[in-house]
Amino acid sequence: MIIILKQDTKKEQIERLEAFFAGMGLKTHLSEGEHSTVMGLVGDTSRVDPDMLESLTEVAAVRRIQEPYKKANRKFHPLDTVVDCGGVKLGGGHFQMIAGPCSVESEEQIVAVAKAVKQSGATLLRGGAFKPRTSPYAFQGLHDEGIRLLLLAKQETGLPVVTEIMDIKHLDLFRDVDVIQVGARNMQNFELLKELGHTGKPILLKRGLANTLQELLMSAEYIMAGGNEQVILCERGIRTFETATRNTLDLSAVPVLHGLTHLPVVVDPSHATGYSRLVPSMSLAAVAAGCDGLIIEVHNDPPHALCDGAQSLTPEIFDEVARKVHKVRDALNA
Amino acid sequence: MIIILKQDTKKEQIERLEAFFAGMGLKTHLSEGEHSTVMGLVGDTSRVDPDMLESLTEVAAVRRIQEPYKKANRKFHPLDTVVDCGGVKLGGGHFQMIAGPCSVESEEQIVAVAKAVKQSGATLLRGGAFKPRTSPYAFQGLHDEGIRLLLLAKQETGLPVVTEIMDIKHLDLFRDVDVIQVGARNMQNFELLKELGHTGKPILLKRGLANTLQELLMSAEYIMAGGNEQVILCERGIRTFETATRNTLDLSAVPVLHGLTHLPVVVDPSHATGYSRLVPSMSLAAVAAGCDGLIIEVHNDPPHALCDGAQSLTPEIFDEVARKVHKVRDALNA
Amino acid sequence: MIIILKQDTKKEQIERLEAFFAGMGLKTHLSEGEHSTVMGLVGDTSRVDPDMLESLTEVAAVRRIQEPYKKANRKFHPLDTVVDCGGVKLGGGHFQMIAGPCSVESEEQIVAVAKAVKQSGATLLRGGAFKPRTSPYAFQGLHDEGIRLLLLAKQETGLPVVTEIMDIKHLDLFRDVDVIQVGARNMQNFELLKELGHTGKPILLKRGLANTLQELLMSAEYIMAGGNEQVILCERGIRTFETATRNTLDLSAVPVLHGLTHLPVVVDPSHATGYSRLVPSMSLAAVAAGCDGLIIEVHNDPPHALCDGAQSLTPEIFDEVARKVHKVRDALNA
Amino acid sequence: MIIILKQDTKKEQIERLEAFFAGMGLKTHLSEGEHSTVMGLVGDTSRVDPDMLESLTEVAAVRRIQEPYKKANRKFHPLDTVVDCGGVKLGGGHFQMIAGPCSVESEEQIVAVAKAVKQSGATLLRGGAFKPRTSPYAFQGLHDEGIRLLLLAKQETGLPVVTEIMDIKHLDLFRDVDVIQVGARNMQNFELLKELGHTGKPILLKRGLANTLQELLMSAEYIMAGGNEQVILCERGIRTFETATRNTLDLSAVPVLHGLTHLPVVVDPSHATGYSRLVPSMSLAAVAAGCDGLIIEVHNDPPHALCDGAQSLTPEIFDEVARKVHKVRDALNA
Repeated sequence: MIIILKQDTKKEQIERLEAFFAGMGLKTHLSEGEHSTVMGLVGDTSRVDPDMLESLTEVAAVRRIQEPYKKANRKFHPLDTVVDCGGVKLGGGHFQMIAGPCSVESEEQIVAVAKAVKQSGATLLRGGAFKPRTSPYAFQGLHDEGIRLLLLAKQETGLPVVTEIMDIKHLDLFRDVDVIQVGARNMQNFELLKELGHTGKPILLKRGLANTLQELLMSAEYIMAGGNEQVILCERGIRTFETATRNTLDLSAVPVLHGLTHLPVVVDPSHATGYSRLVPSMSLAAVAAGCDGLIIEVHNDPPHALCDGAQSLTPEIFDEVARKVHKVRDALNA
Repeated sequence: MIIILKQDTKKEQIERLEAFFAGMGLKTHLSEGEHSTVMGLVGDTSRVDPDMLESLTEVAAVRRIQEPYKKANRKFHPLDTVVDCGGVKLGGGHFQMIAGPCSVESEEQIVAVAKAVKQSGATLLRGGAFKPRTSPYAFQGLHDEGIRLLLLAKQETGLPVVTEIMDIKHLDLFRDVDVIQVGARNMQNFELLKELGHTGKPILLKRGLANTLQELLMSAEYIMAGGNEQVILCERGIRTFETATRNTLDLSAVPVLHGLTHLPVVVDPSHATGYSRLVPSMSLAAVAAGCDGLIIEVHNDPPHALCDGAQSLTPEIFDEVARKVHKVRDALNA
Repeated sequence: MIIILKQDTKKEQIERLEAFFAGMGLKTHLSEGEHSTVMGLVGDTSRVDPDMLESLTEVAAVRRIQEPYKKANRKFHPLDTVVDCGGVKLGGGHFQMIAGPCSVESEEQIVAVAKAVKQSGATLLRGGAFKPRTSPYAFQGLHDEGIRLLLLAKQETGLPVVTEIMDIKHLDLFRDVDVIQVGARNMQNFELLKELGHTGKPILLKRGLANTLQELLMSAEYIMAGGNEQVILCERGIRTFETATRNTLDLSAVPVLHGLTHLPVVVDPSHATGYSRLVPSMSLAAVAAGCDGLIIEVHNDPPHALCDGAQSLTPEIFDEVARKVHKVRDALNA
Repeated sequence: MIIILKQDTKKEQIERLEAFFAGMGLKTHLSEGEHSTVMGLVGDTSRVDPDMLESLTEVAAVRRIQEPYKKANRKFHPLDTVVDCGGVKLGGGHFQMIAGPCSVESEEQIVAVAKAVKQSGATLLRGGAFKPRTSPYAFQGLHDEGIRLLLLAKQETGLPVVTEIMDIKHLDLFRDVDVIQVGARNMQNFELLKELGHTGKPILLKRGLANTLQELLMSAEYIMAGGNEQVILCERGIRTFETATRNTLDLSAVPVLHGLTHLPVVVDPSHATGYSRLVPSMSLAAVAAGCDGLIIEVHNDPPHALCDGAQSLTPEIFDEVARKVHKVRDALNA
């Protein structure tokens, strides 16, 4: 961390600052320029609050040099993490297609979709049992019954399952779930993240609507700090002024995250765009951008889906998308 | 709700749609124009997903007419709600100043700040015991000990207290707390909101960083739908591209919310701006905009605050702000 | 256009509104529901200001049904426009790579880059002579001398050239330029757009930093309304809260625009991301998203470029990107 | 400017960098820490492109210490600038109300509005003759005739006038105009700004929809660099995800700008909110925030205004707002 002092800072003020940092176990290093004096902090600065420093009268500006995340940082862990999702590897060259309906609605529905997407090459099944809905009057999911049906579809097809947790009090219900998803609205539900850090289950962590990539990595760090390093990051669109799409899919997140972290990165084009007609092209774009997997909503009867029907593909369209995804991957790896 | 059909929609398609809505208990009303046919839905449309409708091949666009919130809607409840905060009334002409440190740090600190802000005219004491921090390595609050100290300061000064809950499992600790705060990052933690709907305690609900005012009202609706109608809304800045301030304080939220809802609206200029030097002018602006209260961070030693020192006022500056706040209120009410 | 009237609107008010619209040559069509009355406007509503209507006391909300652009609208012109760029076709299946330095700096530089990118398969040469720079103290381009050098490079290589205009008073200098670029900051410089509508030259119109896709189409409409229908749209990133990239590349713009308009859409991954290390993956993603062309900054010595060196590729990396671009295109067309 | 070098930077690389900067007339100053080496640049760094430096392989990060604007910087010009607007002083304690219609429509209209707002205490008259409209089919203003009518209203009332320029080719028409406005969409039309730098006329410079306050100051710098230091800055709302208002009024801009620059800051609550019902409270909030003036749309018949009727006040409401504005100012100055 670097502290830029104001032009007229006096020697006593500098000495007081040095003593303050010494009390925090940090060494300081001074370099005086023509217009400003710069103090470098050496040691573990992760507990130092840069905003607090900026409030000191003698400080003009504070700049972090090191990223505030450690376990998620590629610098300290250069090799790609490969996450084991119920026997299916994701990351480090292992690309996977996760598909399924927004909500689990019935045995018939989830088993039919599971069989269809498996045939098209999906290797993990998604389906919501607990649904975060903006309105308290909207369908909130089948809860424990939804998880039971999802596991039944797993039994039928052999596909490991991914489903969202909304409150840690439901954790027991997730015992046989292969990957636990944290939704965008809970990305900074820090109490939930801490508890998931003790589960040993792979966590699919979605980026919040208004969260930077650094904040996404800090949330991953919460899970990893608890001992659980099986984290999959998910780009699912951010909120901007544009209204032609539900959110704005930020595909640059894929190469940026691959540079900053060793964790795998998947893309959700369904929630990002909100319209099924945009999902095929955005799936291909995400693959060309280098993502480690896709998570796509597929429903056997989108117009009658109990939630997010507008963004679900039919199994037929998904099949076509899956074939093109593999063509693009082959072309890039050739 | 109004559904604009595509130009070439056939009679059979229209009849199929009418049957579909009849199955949901909704009446339809058709009006045919030169370029388009418009179908109006009559009945309780709060369970209808407009995005799903837009995915139907015959639908060009869907427009909501009625707001999706009911209990929070001023249309159905024209009079201002007055919230009783441990004996202090807020809303409907009752203006209150809520002040105190970001975090409760020690008995000495919280009692000293409480006494100071009371003397300057604050009527409620704030102080964090559970702190949502971006980094897992940052100070997370004193937890139960923090609440104990806060209640001790209440005993010393008589000020009712406001403090943030981060997980419903801590609810027992909030038994003697007067107002429970839901932080911006938990505004759409729907499971938490549902549970708070059963507490009967006043809830101070902060707007999320990237949430629209309509979404804020929908989150209030989650609490109210559970039977708890004592909700105070709080504008605390939204995330934009501007980096000169921590967030962008959206003061238009005050008159907009007052138009849409009967719930009181308070403003938090400390978190919104992130810099103590901007808090005085933004406090006055918020009052001039017509807010029902202010929530301001005050610390007796901001540079050594364990969190958010940069945005805390000293008791001296707070005193000055409080005096000007009353001058502005007097001028407007004269 | 649909006007939703307030619940308590009286018959006289409705009649007054009908007379008002009749005066504008519009027919009205009334449909009364349980909670609201809806008035449809029939006729040319492009001159009606929906915001003005919303200010009327009896109006609850106004909804447009038809897009406010006509000449750019795919509805009225279903076939893809193919733009002739100095003999090179762009759009309607004709994919082109536009490459070159941010600024023209010297004859040696522009000719060397032009030869290199041509060899890698670029079919149009870009290079700035007039440079919009945030600071008045930064390099502003070589102006007429820059255009002279660019045309010299065209002569040497046969590549048609694209360069930006910043003020209509410079138009004479663009006589031999093949494609005139309008930069993001001038997307709503309506006086400039109007004048370009009379030039008959292909216009490459970049999306503004904070402009919606509908506004981009309205700006295209300004050019087309003057008689010049040779417009190429360019997605180059929008401004969001994320700071890991210079802007946020909105690739969904490609399929959204292809749905709304017949005009070709190219993508600029250099300005969108701001970092050369992100350009290769974002170029491939743009191609997979279905764009009609790429515009990429290439410099023979990026660290010494007079502007935007950080986002320029070396000719070697560009060559690699170009090869992969063709592989992806082949895979998708196979 | 501070350059943070990568951990493994070799001595030869550092020497090469030092030579590179020496060639630009800059001295360097090295300070080596445990994890990183920091190089300070001493001298005029305003021509150094930080993004270019970040592209060098040995550079981890670059941080500016000094603001890139000079003439607009309060550091080098501590006293408030007072702008003489045709005899009316604005800034440095001189508060002014600028009022008038969005567009000049007729002699009757502009004279009536001018007389009304003067009576309520407005000291400058605004009115658009050239109107930037999103649609080429919308009313574009009366052009030279509009300016003629505006000057006629000036003659009738003695109020100096403010009106917007959209293209420098119209400059001759502005000879008798007192203050030339640059609209939000032209804030980065650098060619226009340069030319206005030679006019000697006060310039009212509006913040762009997606521009940071630093960019606003850089645009002021363009005008000032040409010799014209009579610049008034105007906050008029920025574009965010919120749709309840046309834009989001960023009132923190007032104290932030007052800290960074000596130029006066006025606020436009009409364009910022887009709805007349929000204008009164936002006017008062802007005054409480410390602005040097307000610019408010007033129309004698808002529902029939040719543009932006929704955001115009009637003369009666303006009168009420003006009275309250003065009460708030008196309360704050007491």
